[in-house]
Amino acid sequence: MTETTPKYDILGIGNAIVDVVARAEDTFLSRHDMHKGAMILIDSAMADTIYAAMPPGQESSGGSAANTCAVAAGLGSRVAYIGKVADDQLGGVFRHDINAVGVHFPTTPLSGGAPTARCLILVTPDGQRTMNTFLGACVTLGEDDVDPALVAACAVTYLEGYLFDPPAAQAAFRKAAEAAHAAGRRVALSLSDAFCVNRHRAAFLDLVANHVDILFANETEITALYERNSFEEAAEAARKDVALAALTRSEAGSLILQGAETVQVAAAPTKVVDTTGAGDAYAAGFLAGLTSGRSLDLCGRMGSIAAAEVISHYGARPETDLRKLMPA
Amino acid sequence: MTETTPKYDILGIGNAIVDVVARAEDTFLSRHDMHKGAMILIDSAMADTIYAAMPPGQESSGGSAANTCAVAAGLGSRVAYIGKVADDQLGGVFRHDINAVGVHFPTTPLSGGAPTARCLILVTPDGQRTMNTFLGACVTLGEDDVDPALVAACAVTYLEGYLFDPPAAQAAFRKAAEAAHAAGRRVALSLSDAFCVNRHRAAFLDLVANHVDILFANETEITALYERNSFEEAAEAARKDVALAALTRSEAGSLILQGAETVQVAAAPTKVVDTTGAGDAYAAGFLAGLTSGRSLDLCGRMGSIAAAEVISHYGARPETDLRKLMPA
Repeated sequence: MTETTPKYDILGIGNAIVDVVARAEDTFLSRHDMHKGAMILIDSAMADTIYAAMPPGQESSGGSAANTCAVAAGLGSRVAYIGKVADDQLGGVFRHDINAVGVHFPTTPLSGGAPTARCLILVTPDGQRTMNTFLGACVTLGEDDVDPALVAACAVTYLEGYLFDPPAAQAAFRKAAEAAHAAGRRVALSLSDAFCVNRHRAAFLDLVANHVDILFANETEITALYERNSFEEAAEAARKDVALAALTRSEAGSLILQGAETVQVAAAPTKVVDTTGAGDAYAAGFLAGLTSGRSLDLCGRMGSIAAAEVISHYGARPETDLRKLMPA
Repeated sequence: MTETTPKYDILGIGNAIVDVVARAEDTFLSRHDMHKGAMILIDSAMADTIYAAMPPGQESSGGSAANTCAVAAGLGSRVAYIGKVADDQLGGVFRHDINAVGVHFPTTPLSGGAPTARCLILVTPDGQRTMNTFLGACVTLGEDDVDPALVAACAVTYLEGYLFDPPAAQAAFRKAAEAAHAAGRRVALSLSDAFCVNRHRAAFLDLVANHVDILFANETEITALYERNSFEEAAEAARKDVALAALTRSEAGSLILQGAETVQVAAAPTKVVDTTGAGDAYAAGFLAGLTSGRSLDLCGRMGSIAAAEVISHYGARPETDLRKLMPA
């Protein structure tokens, strides 16, 4: 274990994506064979087809781990991010927004290839978001984008499960996990999506058991990972598998498991407008607390408060100064 | 006067712009020498400088007349729009959004030149917006983009005052006004901004007196146009000058003048979040009413309700179905 003080609290690695958010009725989802609440991968042609059919949208920077980085930076954490955009207008938007919240973003943009990734997000009247991701430039994120010295300088390296979709990113993922552990740092993983878990279950099970120190998942993701029928059984499986797990259950709050310790945290009250980014914001609040030495209960409450702010409006990034909402 | 039934109710002509909206403190405005509530034109270098200093933003389609078109289409009007984007990603966003609300948008995009126009909008805690516009591709909008047959097919041709800033657009503006009157249609003008009025007062005075049938202006714009000290004096000057004037006064509502007739309309109650697009939405509601044969009082109320919805959230376009908010 190194004794060096980390330069950054959190290093996020993920798919660098610009969100296009539009409101839609449930009939829009069924007409386009979308599974409500899920994320599916689409190709360029399908992106054009869905976009052409979509209502007017609002564009803003997204990407699961990038959202977490932006929220954590807003809470005062020192944050770095690795992800691949193209050198186009949307890539410029992504870079501007993550830099503007103070996140160090050293990844070289892709030139002359696919455009910056877009996620077409339909928000139904119940506040649920359904996501259609065109990965674009993200598919070129690879090992070369991971600087082991940067990883070693970060207390926690946070990886999104979506990284397992673009093939080259898996190698980046493993390289980062190895570099983190070699430097005595911790590795966190978010399972991202139940469908993503189903696509990559064997790899995730291996990772969680052998390479992950902190696991984030919601109820459907954790039951999908361990193929259990109840949340309780899946949670106990996670307790045995990983040093620290933070499991979210929407309005039922979150459950934090660390060895024999169990902490139950209530959800922060809010009016749900758009659930996009809820899990990302929870992880941000939790990790901001953890890397500043707070108790698990306080980490969970910081996660809940950050998530509550993000789901109270359209878009995955905070619209208020989160520090003012946090407990002392 | 032609007796042909118009194919469209409204043809908007304006600067086709994508908005980048961010929240900022008043100190940000003073640090960058911005005049709160005004629109200034900036060049590409200044756009880069301001953008680099700006907080994270949300991108959405804007442009004054384009906003009016989008709102009117949402109210059921048949609408067309002329404006110049580039064939880049932001141009694609603009085209998608205006098509998605059902607006006919035939203008050929600019290829190989300046990028799509951007307006960097800072929204201060009081809800006021301060706008910095990089005109980009808009400066190439010209006479050739105005199809007289399209103008002749529209009951009202609506021109934004901002069109007087890019030089070639003035010719487009005059060509459209002539084509409209030749076909027995009406020409509407929005003064856009008091600073814009000051830049082009002589041209605006000539237009209003000789070529405009319906004038939209707020209190500062109408007093700037006629260089009067009071709203009342400026309103009386407008009454003499133009067949129909709709003058807005924020929370004090609007005053509609038509010959000897005077109609006072109250503002619709709302909580102000971001005033971007308030005047555009008022004009949309008003014109949607006018072109469907409503009374002046009802036209004004439709304008007030549309404006109230738009200022209740960030961004210049409605987030709800406006038809449900309208009086029967």
